[in-house]
Amino acid sequence: MVVKRDALEHNIATMAAFTRDHGMLFAPHAKTHMSPEISRRQLEAGAWGLTVATPSQAMTVRGFGVSRIMVANQVVDPTGLDWAAAELAADPSFEFLSFVDSRAGVDLLAERAGARPFPVLVEMGHEGGRAGCRKFSDLLDLAEYVRRADGVELAGVAGYEGALPSANEVRKYLITLQNAVDHLRAQILTVGGSQWFDVVGRELVATQATIILRSGAYVSHDDGYYRERTPFNRIEGSLEPAFEIWAHVLSTPEPDLAIIGMGKRDVPFDEGLPIPRRAGLTVLKTQDQHTIVRGALEVGELVAFGISHPCTAFDKWRVLPLVDADYTVVGTINTHF
Amino acid sequence: MVVKRDALEHNIATMAAFTRDHGMLFAPHAKTHMSPEISRRQLEAGAWGLTVATPSQAMTVRGFGVSRIMVANQVVDPTGLDWAAAELAADPSFEFLSFVDSRAGVDLLAERAGARPFPVLVEMGHEGGRAGCRKFSDLLDLAEYVRRADGVELAGVAGYEGALPSANEVRKYLITLQNAVDHLRAQILTVGGSQWFDVVGRELVATQATIILRSGAYVSHDDGYYRERTPFNRIEGSLEPAFEIWAHVLSTPEPDLAIIGMGKRDVPFDEGLPIPRRAGLTVLKTQDQHTIVRGALEVGELVAFGISHPCTAFDKWRVLPLVDADYTVVGTINTHF
Repeated sequence: MVVKRDALEHNIATMAAFTRDHGMLFAPHAKTHMSPEISRRQLEAGAWGLTVATPSQAMTVRGFGVSRIMVANQVVDPTGLDWAAAELAADPSFEFLSFVDSRAGVDLLAERAGARPFPVLVEMGHEGGRAGCRKFSDLLDLAEYVRRADGVELAGVAGYEGALPSANEVRKYLITLQNAVDHLRAQILTVGGSQWFDVVGRELVATQATIILRSGAYVSHDDGYYRERTPFNRIEGSLEPAFEIWAHVLSTPEPDLAIIGMGKRDVPFDEGLPIPRRAGLTVLKTQDQHTIVRGALEVGELVAFGISHPCTAFDKWRVLPLVDADYTVVGTINTHF
Repeated sequence: MVVKRDALEHNIATMAAFTRDHGMLFAPHAKTHMSPEISRRQLEAGAWGLTVATPSQAMTVRGFGVSRIMVANQVVDPTGLDWAAAELAADPSFEFLSFVDSRAGVDLLAERAGARPFPVLVEMGHEGGRAGCRKFSDLLDLAEYVRRADGVELAGVAGYEGALPSANEVRKYLITLQNAVDHLRAQILTVGGSQWFDVVGRELVATQATIILRSGAYVSHDDGYYRERTPFNRIEGSLEPAFEIWAHVLSTPEPDLAIIGMGKRDVPFDEGLPIPRRAGLTVLKTQDQHTIVRGALEVGELVAFGISHPCTAFDKWRVLPLVDADYTVVGTINTHF
């Protein structure tokens, strides 16, 4: 599997421009790639900081030299909290944001706080979503609880619109977030995802809060899940798939059936199977080390595929060659999962 | 995620005894774990050598110091073949077996052979299976082709019964393999899988060839897929699940709904979801970094889970703590995927 430099750099520049043009800050989700080389490029392109999913990912990107980290989850792990408290105390310029959606979560943070309180974002969820308060009144109560607690301070409001099925539902959800910002006079509103940032850009244009966008998958884009769902299908601009995987035909045991030497260890299979970059081929299934393809192929041939779902592509490789348009290796992308 | 030492060592001893008692050689499939610490334990317990799926895995386990390697696939990658030819030439005691199922595959090997020919096993497949000749007559033709070719030599017959749905179909398939061994006066017959080795042990007891078994998943076993399918549900003995993963409850956004801090990056999800080690919990789904659970849990709690499918568990971790019965860390399991 290779990463195409031109596509990667195009995507980073495209989203840097999109967020800048819409007056948002950008904290790309580093859980997608967990790569120091990509983090550096994202920050050089103007990202405010990086988002991560877990305290251990926060430790890792902190090791990349990142000075603003947002954990897009409630942090409950004592080891992670102790680490964050110590980092905040040791470096006055370090910024560390995390989400809370319950009093129990606030209490856990408050207990572990050091010299500087933990700045937290109260998280508004939605029915059928992941974490986050389900009721607006619960969010306001929680914000009040945060304001009264020692060891934490209210930094703003957080949401995640990526799991919503339609632009209309995203709009309704963003109105709720906007209302929360107004009620709480919050400084920051953060939203995420790589599927609806066009709607985010349009709907939140007049908000008083600083918007921090957390898109992650945009960076490599793909030939499947995100190709179908990117906002650039609706607005001007484009992302380019940066991943390409080449594998050998190991066996053609029946007419029009080929066993390819790549499998679940090499390529994502959870949000769509690999996409052949050659006409006339259909991927039937992936196994641990093999992909079964319908089509006319010969033993020993190399075949190229695109992938679907960046977040389960990067994590299968410790190092990926970065290639130019001629497939000359011009660098490496290391991952730290 | 931790690996329980007692379970790991019990499983290694159990399969070493099973193969010894049935007069078979054992080449455990290292693609499951790709770990030098586990490889060493398997070889110390009497394994003949190790099986791998790809030439790059062969290079890796060769780096562990393994002197007998079987690639359970047709090797078509020129780089891999050149490496194997050089290793065979450099070390007269190195044994390197691989499969062939087509003349094109034999030609690729023959072209790249060095001073010592590549010993190959002709692979018999089955309808609906992966690689391998579909017709018995094709297998015999291929064996003849191997015998006449320079650069390769016929070492035996290979099959894979793991994808067959019933003991009866396994028996029928093993009879075909046995017939192939008889026709070809083959020295070696190798079969694989962790689901039917009881049938293999019974059916192939009278064969003249040396049987080499290639089971891999047995080594960690699991709480799902293999717990349901292990031959030890039918014969005396047992395997113990060696994996256990502990994760925090991050959020309880609705009554009886918990968001757990482990996801597709941490735990297999392709052949069954994680299995809670506590009554009253039901895993609804896994996401990149989260698992959604139905049940009464509190924010900040740690919950233990077993896993389903070892081959997509080991490959998510670069290093795993090896723990004793009291969860004292007594070593590490490193993986080299």
